[in-house]
Amino acid sequence: MSKAIRVAVVGAGGRMGKEVVKLVLQDPELELVAAVGLHDSGTDAGTLVALPACGITVTPDLEMALVEHKPDVMVDFTTPQSAYTNTSLAVKHGVRPVIGTTGFTPEQIEELDKQCQTRAIGGLIAPNFSIGAILMMKFAAQAAKYLPHVEIIETHGDQKLDAPSGTSIKTAEMIAANREELRQGNPKEEEIIEGARGAYYNGFRIHSVRLPGVFAQQEVIFGGYGQSLKIRHDSYERAAYMPGVKMAVEKVMGYTGMIYGFDHFID
Amino acid sequence: MSKAIRVAVVGAGGRMGKEVVKLVLQDPELELVAAVGLHDSGTDAGTLVALPACGITVTPDLEMALVEHKPDVMVDFTTPQSAYTNTSLAVKHGVRPVIGTTGFTPEQIEELDKQCQTRAIGGLIAPNFSIGAILMMKFAAQAAKYLPHVEIIETHGDQKLDAPSGTSIKTAEMIAANREELRQGNPKEEEIIEGARGAYYNGFRIHSVRLPGVFAQQEVIFGGYGQSLKIRHDSYERAAYMPGVKMAVEKVMGYTGMIYGFDHFID
Amino acid sequence: MSKAIRVAVVGAGGRMGKEVVKLVLQDPELELVAAVGLHDSGTDAGTLVALPACGITVTPDLEMALVEHKPDVMVDFTTPQSAYTNTSLAVKHGVRPVIGTTGFTPEQIEELDKQCQTRAIGGLIAPNFSIGAILMMKFAAQAAKYLPHVEIIETHGDQKLDAPSGTSIKTAEMIAANREELRQGNPKEEEIIEGARGAYYNGFRIHSVRLPGVFAQQEVIFGGYGQSLKIRHDSYERAAYMPGVKMAVEKVMGYTGMIYGFDHFID
Amino acid sequence: MSKAIRVAVVGAGGRMGKEVVKLVLQDPELELVAAVGLHDSGTDAGTLVALPACGITVTPDLEMALVEHKPDVMVDFTTPQSAYTNTSLAVKHGVRPVIGTTGFTPEQIEELDKQCQTRAIGGLIAPNFSIGAILMMKFAAQAAKYLPHVEIIETHGDQKLDAPSGTSIKTAEMIAANREELRQGNPKEEEIIEGARGAYYNGFRIHSVRLPGVFAQQEVIFGGYGQSLKIRHDSYERAAYMPGVKMAVEKVMGYTGMIYGFDHFID
Repeated sequence: MSKAIRVAVVGAGGRMGKEVVKLVLQDPELELVAAVGLHDSGTDAGTLVALPACGITVTPDLEMALVEHKPDVMVDFTTPQSAYTNTSLAVKHGVRPVIGTTGFTPEQIEELDKQCQTRAIGGLIAPNFSIGAILMMKFAAQAAKYLPHVEIIETHGDQKLDAPSGTSIKTAEMIAANREELRQGNPKEEEIIEGARGAYYNGFRIHSVRLPGVFAQQEVIFGGYGQSLKIRHDSYERAAYMPGVKMAVEKVMGYTGMIYGFDHFID
Repeated sequence: MSKAIRVAVVGAGGRMGKEVVKLVLQDPELELVAAVGLHDSGTDAGTLVALPACGITVTPDLEMALVEHKPDVMVDFTTPQSAYTNTSLAVKHGVRPVIGTTGFTPEQIEELDKQCQTRAIGGLIAPNFSIGAILMMKFAAQAAKYLPHVEIIETHGDQKLDAPSGTSIKTAEMIAANREELRQGNPKEEEIIEGARGAYYNGFRIHSVRLPGVFAQQEVIFGGYGQSLKIRHDSYERAAYMPGVKMAVEKVMGYTGMIYGFDHFID
Repeated sequence: MSKAIRVAVVGAGGRMGKEVVKLVLQDPELELVAAVGLHDSGTDAGTLVALPACGITVTPDLEMALVEHKPDVMVDFTTPQSAYTNTSLAVKHGVRPVIGTTGFTPEQIEELDKQCQTRAIGGLIAPNFSIGAILMMKFAAQAAKYLPHVEIIETHGDQKLDAPSGTSIKTAEMIAANREELRQGNPKEEEIIEGARGAYYNGFRIHSVRLPGVFAQQEVIFGGYGQSLKIRHDSYERAAYMPGVKMAVEKVMGYTGMIYGFDHFID
Repeated sequence: MSKAIRVAVVGAGGRMGKEVVKLVLQDPELELVAAVGLHDSGTDAGTLVALPACGITVTPDLEMALVEHKPDVMVDFTTPQSAYTNTSLAVKHGVRPVIGTTGFTPEQIEELDKQCQTRAIGGLIAPNFSIGAILMMKFAAQAAKYLPHVEIIETHGDQKLDAPSGTSIKTAEMIAANREELRQGNPKEEEIIEGARGAYYNGFRIHSVRLPGVFAQQEVIFGGYGQSLKIRHDSYERAAYMPGVKMAVEKVMGYTGMIYGFDHFID
């Protein structure tokens, strides 16, 4: 068996960070070498995630952790505010960044790509690590070429603030880019109760359902003559992103430059 | 075997009327004795529905048909304009009316009930003959007592004019009558694209999907702590109403008075 | 506000027991007064479930806990082996039992009912506390009267040992008790690959899907002329049973005698 | 507008043939120039499909129809027995064949390809013309690379003889060809009722549901860590194949040689 990949987790005390710590501790092909977090300094990373103590203590100082423990990969689920600095720091120390934060500008990504090229290492910035969700979006975009009539229904927990969801808007953009121009529905259609037909996007509709008990679900429905095609993805918990994180950690070991978007790993 | 029930079909040339003619011709427990229609006068009723000729010719004169052929039951899928007159005429001649038309006033129904009582015959007026749809509504109303968080998604063909559908509004009324007062969702929720959260009804939402290839579908989704319950009804074609029509034809033979709503036949 | 109901949790260290401890600690209408468990003796019950310490320590001795802390209700998710003894003990001390364990004989239930009557307290034994699942079963049984053609698809995690699931068999029994005798399908039907048509039960079929990521799902599908009706329940996690447990804890305060089956609380 | 494509329909009186006649008569980009059928000789093709008479009479003689009316394309939904002869005849007369019949041997297809090459015309033999079904199969095969845990549920009318369906077996083959070797489920799994776990194929399961009212549905479910991905196709009626037939008629005008399988038109 090949040697385990050495991983530093940044934002270890956050909701996604904790899942990543769990993943790394439980996967024999990965080794936790550092856990960075502002609020849980001094806590054992294992204890933090309700696993046995692992001997790695959460530290607030990222640079020291990178220098001291020489990770192969840094996984960062922090905030848009700190993500650029963290990423740049990792690359500077030759550590491959896997970043699950949004908010990078195109210029920042280009700059980070140059830095990765200079250091001859790989990196990934991805707003979504869910393999299933990415497949759903790819398939939806592909189907729209042949079955242009489509609507999206996305369902999330009832405390979610924004509607429609980011994933549904991203899906809608991909569909719009692939299908012929089309304004669906009866031009004389009338809403007896306002909003019934959902959010209008580029000729079609997005519907946002909000119910307790649901984590994240999305269904893209294509309607054709005498048929319908549905592509549906259900995430039941945050852990659903972990297989994607692991795949990313492995992939960044094998190329040079900064990639934006997990979908580049999926053909 | 008991004798077949003698049926007159009114509106025989309409879309629903044709289905009823087919039903009656193909069911050995029913016998077509008259077919009434304004536009297909003189056509054999079998030919009209792409079945072998049956010897019953479409006639425009309802009263003459009732007097001459003495049906047990008259099934009428015509228009709100003619339905009251037709119903009253049937009762006058001792023929039990089964009416699939909306638009009766409460006073008209009361008056027709009196006429039925006088003639000691049964009658039914029902806006919906779909057994599955009625079960869906009953179950949704019942579930709302225990799982008050709910949304409705209804899907119809893309040329439908009104949204939300009549069935979804009726379902929403039944839910609202059964559940505790509740305004669902995050009070600070924001629609990034207007309409995303659907039509607001009594604290919950109705979403109307319109796609080609679909006849009529509705899903009522209840969300609870860690669980969801879905009740879904799909109609694939107009014929889906026929088992309900047959059940009605049999039922009206057995009671006295005018009943409004097919759900009275379902406990 | 009325006083909180005093609850003792037995089997506090088990998977369901932990959920009950969490429920009781987090619900202001309930008060944890004792936590009984064989393996976690001495641990604070809050710590046990990753909540702040609550001052109630897990103890191995049920009787002492009942005598000392005088709970109103005992919630027991243990094993068929210990459940009868625990229940009997609770009733003896005037504590209302809410039991989530199977394996009671009819004689035992009758005996426990007598004991409850004598002490003038209520009790509940229920193999299933999921309100959604119970509604699904009730609706399925009701629909089978009108739409006798039915199949069941149940989906569970891929490590489940038995197929079909207990819930699906219970549902099938309830359907069979309600519908007319009917052997579905084409009598000349042939399985090209053995098992394709699923498990045969009383004229219809049950299909068991096993996939990772799924907790517990079941769909009952009725097929009629031109229509289908689907009743589907998804549980996403063990916590889905807790609203049912809470309802039971409240209900047992209000009647006398031992009730078997949560469905008695649902009309 | 470009000139309409001249189409001959063979098997015009069959169930699929009638749909093709309807399609060609109703689509302004297609022109019906001949209708060939053994049983409806002499009937007007329009009348045959309940449309206004169109002046094209059904004839039993294919060769004469080809010679006399010089169609651009021949659409043939007949039987495996006659399909090879018909196809060969069409090519001989420079008419592009679009064939919806199974049962060709690889040698026959190769021979027909040569004939097409010689005449410099295109042709298509396809067992399935449903664009949605083909997309479903392609997506399922693609997803299996990333989410290898999968089961298939297919639903057809209750009078279907064989289970699992041809489409589900084809889907299963495509999945098996794409995913890593994997025997799913718990090795100690036990069927309490025989058949519950469905048909075993290459490590995974296929379930066949049979219910009245359903035409053809299939759902492929992938289960991953904390997530599931579902790809579902519903056909509501035979007409669902017609957009695929039209696409084929247009496509064969633009290439040379015989193509096997509609999926070659979908990238």
